[in-house]
Amino acid sequence: MKIGILGGGQLGRMLALAGYPLGIGVRCYDPVSDSPARDVAELISGPYEDAGALARFLPGLDAVTYEFENVPAETVRLIEKTVPVYPAPRALEVGQDRLAEKEFFTALGIPTPRFQRVGSAGELEKAIGVTGLPAVLKTRRSGYDGKGQFRLLRREDATAAWQSMGGNPAILEEFVPFERELSVLAVRSRDGAAVCYPLIENVHRNGILSVSRAPYPDPLLQKTASEYAYRLMRELGYCGVFALELFHAGGRLLANEMAPRVHNSGHWSIEGADTSQFENHLRAVTGLPLGSTAARGFSGMVNIIGDHPPVERILALPGVHLHLYGKSPRPLRKLGHVTVTAGDSAGRDRLLATVRELLGA
Amino acid sequence: MKIGILGGGQLGRMLALAGYPLGIGVRCYDPVSDSPARDVAELISGPYEDAGALARFLPGLDAVTYEFENVPAETVRLIEKTVPVYPAPRALEVGQDRLAEKEFFTALGIPTPRFQRVGSAGELEKAIGVTGLPAVLKTRRSGYDGKGQFRLLRREDATAAWQSMGGNPAILEEFVPFERELSVLAVRSRDGAAVCYPLIENVHRNGILSVSRAPYPDPLLQKTASEYAYRLMRELGYCGVFALELFHAGGRLLANEMAPRVHNSGHWSIEGADTSQFENHLRAVTGLPLGSTAARGFSGMVNIIGDHPPVERILALPGVHLHLYGKSPRPLRKLGHVTVTAGDSAGRDRLLATVRELLGA
Repeated sequence: MKIGILGGGQLGRMLALAGYPLGIGVRCYDPVSDSPARDVAELISGPYEDAGALARFLPGLDAVTYEFENVPAETVRLIEKTVPVYPAPRALEVGQDRLAEKEFFTALGIPTPRFQRVGSAGELEKAIGVTGLPAVLKTRRSGYDGKGQFRLLRREDATAAWQSMGGNPAILEEFVPFERELSVLAVRSRDGAAVCYPLIENVHRNGILSVSRAPYPDPLLQKTASEYAYRLMRELGYCGVFALELFHAGGRLLANEMAPRVHNSGHWSIEGADTSQFENHLRAVTGLPLGSTAARGFSGMVNIIGDHPPVERILALPGVHLHLYGKSPRPLRKLGHVTVTAGDSAGRDRLLATVRELLGA
Repeated sequence: MKIGILGGGQLGRMLALAGYPLGIGVRCYDPVSDSPARDVAELISGPYEDAGALARFLPGLDAVTYEFENVPAETVRLIEKTVPVYPAPRALEVGQDRLAEKEFFTALGIPTPRFQRVGSAGELEKAIGVTGLPAVLKTRRSGYDGKGQFRLLRREDATAAWQSMGGNPAILEEFVPFERELSVLAVRSRDGAAVCYPLIENVHRNGILSVSRAPYPDPLLQKTASEYAYRLMRELGYCGVFALELFHAGGRLLANEMAPRVHNSGHWSIEGADTSQFENHLRAVTGLPLGSTAARGFSGMVNIIGDHPPVERILALPGVHLHLYGKSPRPLRKLGHVTVTAGDSAGRDRLLATVRELLGA
């Protein structure tokens, strides 16, 4: 069994590592030839639009999936003619456009922060009337890790905000003074069976995920979040791991964004769940039974961002797991992550505090 | 950091998979070019005596270790001139000779079954007088998984037994009617720090490990077994994971054999311990701090031997992990293993029984 993955970053690398014990081989496709998957999988390099390189990527693949959602939808449609693609391209298309995504949430009755389409300076003025201030202006496409965003505090900043979009279509979103950020990861099989991981609490820094903790133990929120994920996956005819980021505010859950792939906030599942998100994604796209998503104790995850971590001091801590991605340091670059596990939440939190201090996170 | 491994079997494969998250690359050396490590690591192929192939293996390695104990000691001594080898060759030499091994145990005050050197038919007669019957005649070298052994029940079988050795030096060992087989895995760092995994209970079939269960909860036996492992490692100036197989008989622990490497009976540690034996071996040989060996719940391991397993039925069980080695089926060949984990020993045993039934183990 051989699976093709569009994208060869750390997610592709961890998918490949999860595949070997199951007898599933992985071949990645990435525009960058020294991307993190290079060490652990076959890697074909070329632009996403390069039909010749794609033709070298496809032979012998049983299915294709992706670890990066900004793959051109046309690339996926081209591949689909030869090899089945999971999840189906519609999830990709919806997820690539922040406006389509929010409209999709709304159409399915899933609450979101208030939002408005913005295509011009004039529309921005009107949109502020709907969302109120503060608000966040975001490019509809190609933003990730906080890029392509402008936090709008005063009406006077509207011109600067619009100019920062560089003429790209945008969406204005109400700024939600949330109590916490949560995410829910679910996985759906080819035949429609679905399971959900325990809720995850996330902390972002500079728009980039910094820390995750799981499980976030709130049965009512868990039920609501899981139900949202199931509803979205069902509507999309989804297959694979699916991530939904949520704000918890005033007792409600508001959908912020979705990702049609394995997700940074689920990295704790390698040690912290019965079946990791990577293994479950591969099980789903290869038609194998889904694995249990039950938590094993209490877990935390800290991203290693920008600089090499103090490896020896991290590994000297019991219950701590290091995951490096084989990347060279660069400001704001995700170089790896550290997972901590413990038998109770207090023990987890103590260990997590130590790791955060070591990593300056 | 790059580590060379002599041998590219499943142990090399699992060492390589454990290395990537730590930023440790692996290059294997194996006489067989399609050995299981081929998918996940660089693989150099050649006979162990081929200086030319070894010269292609060594460049850029920070240390060399092994996953197979029948590497010629001269090969290791040659490599040592260029690259540090962990564990040091003495462990290999002692472990390669069943007689030297038993004498080494005895010299360190570690009880063993009664044994006698056998170099001729005449010596076998005399040896039977020492060990009594039944007894087991074994070649001193190159036996593994029950090969090169003759179970001697009656004096009249002595001639047939000696002939089955093909003229090779042998050892006669008392047959111990043990209550159970146990093994203890320990790991020692370059600077002499050492930790021990929980005791493991093993069941062999046809001389091949079939099932392991851990922890085997007996604090007194654990203390004795750990102390034996520490004593042996200290005497050998050992670095890396070390395995000691023991018979539990009449309330005593008798040392049966040692392995200077990661060990089949420790495969449960991937999911069942804070730090797997593979990660801890790499930590030891690269000079990193050793990881916690504490058990995570109760684990069991079943070897997949001879035939492809029913993958879908195995993966449909919660708390079950599949590890395939990328080998094609062949009678008595280890193709993979299945680990089960549970929160209590009864749950583990139920799951283990189901998996054994599925695998016919």
